[in-house]
Amino acid sequence: MAASAAADHGQRRASAIAAALVTNGDVDHVAGLLTLRERQPLSLYGTAGVMDVIAANPIFEVLSAECVERIRVPLDAPFEPVPGLTVEMFAVPGKVPLYLEKGDVSVGEVGEMTVGLRLSAGGQSIFYIPGCAEVTDDVRRRLSGAHAVLFDGTVFTDGEMEAAGVGAKTGRRMGHVPISGPGGSLEAFDGLGIGEKIYIHINNTNPILVEGSEERDRVEACGWRVAYDGMELDA
Amino acid sequence: MAASAAADHGQRRASAIAAALVTNGDVDHVAGLLTLRERQPLSLYGTAGVMDVIAANPIFEVLSAECVERIRVPLDAPFEPVPGLTVEMFAVPGKVPLYLEKGDVSVGEVGEMTVGLRLSAGGQSIFYIPGCAEVTDDVRRRLSGAHAVLFDGTVFTDGEMEAAGVGAKTGRRMGHVPISGPGGSLEAFDGLGIGEKIYIHINNTNPILVEGSEERDRVEACGWRVAYDGMELDA
Repeated sequence: MAASAAADHGQRRASAIAAALVTNGDVDHVAGLLTLRERQPLSLYGTAGVMDVIAANPIFEVLSAECVERIRVPLDAPFEPVPGLTVEMFAVPGKVPLYLEKGDVSVGEVGEMTVGLRLSAGGQSIFYIPGCAEVTDDVRRRLSGAHAVLFDGTVFTDGEMEAAGVGAKTGRRMGHVPISGPGGSLEAFDGLGIGEKIYIHINNTNPILVEGSEERDRVEACGWRVAYDGMELDA
Repeated sequence: MAASAAADHGQRRASAIAAALVTNGDVDHVAGLLTLRERQPLSLYGTAGVMDVIAANPIFEVLSAECVERIRVPLDAPFEPVPGLTVEMFAVPGKVPLYLEKGDVSVGEVGEMTVGLRLSAGGQSIFYIPGCAEVTDDVRRRLSGAHAVLFDGTVFTDGEMEAAGVGAKTGRRMGHVPISGPGGSLEAFDGLGIGEKIYIHINNTNPILVEGSEERDRVEACGWRVAYDGMELDA
């Protein structure tokens, strides 16, 4: 979930969040909406696919329809959730949310279930892509020359969950391209002329979280920064 | 949600939580389940009414059926979620979850949607009742002589939400008997011979949260304590 600030501070319990943009329906992207209740005026934006996933769960009615408008956004169509900020949602390779997986799961599908965001203001663009199963030519083309990219840094190596003894799935199976290795994001982003490259959505098995680790040094040597709580970006 | 400890610390990501007991379906009682994902072995206990509310939300499938058994518990029937701990669920006056409210809402219904817990071990009983719209004679009878009671301390006065400018509803309308006033819990619990009386589920408008406030002094003078994060109770 990406939240954009603006604000009605008039209400005693209002937050500064005027709009929330959801990029997929998985629990780590939508459960935060439950803490924005109960009378917080807000606009909620997502693709029809993701909004259907949310609508199928009555618990999200805590975002009362009297206060929260749910807006279905077509792919590749810019909109302005708050004045002066233009957003575009675009499909990236992904999959359905884990809790809706049934039988054989198709990972890497490009559609409405997993999107990236292009946020533009003052002539500059930032991309926010917390989940991406593969850095395709389309993704590379869109991101080329961007002011900043916040990108899926879930795992450093595709098999690190199993190596750490915490799961059997690869990063790719979870819908997350690894940082290292063939086709990894370090390699795939090389030479795109991006101003700031920042890893986000970092799993607790990922050694880039450890300052001074070999892996942290390696991503920094490739021009990446590792996001942290409270990080701010200036234009 | 009440969680009882036991444990499989064998798994790297396992917590000490072996069982979770849900007392109603409102968001503050069930949303925490979403953070117990994804492969945490666990048993989940609730009445059929509350379990139906959870089942109607696919997002709770993050509690994978392979790991989490959902157990429907009849009212007034003791069960043993972990060895040595006996639990009984009993109906208290309440209402449906806020996000399922439609039209005129009947508050104070006694049924499966809002329950209290009696937790017994070593010959002693503790009651956990985070939501209760009225302290009825049945509630008083059950709690009489208990070792300890953790009880709904949402609001001090029935109209404090409106007075604070954060909402139009009374405590009772939200399913929470106030602490003070006629029929309030201070009055209703008087003379029941309860060992420890502790207020829980305290709203941020409630002045008992402020140490040294008149209201805090008053509840303490009546033999109540105010719960805090990390509070522990010894037998």
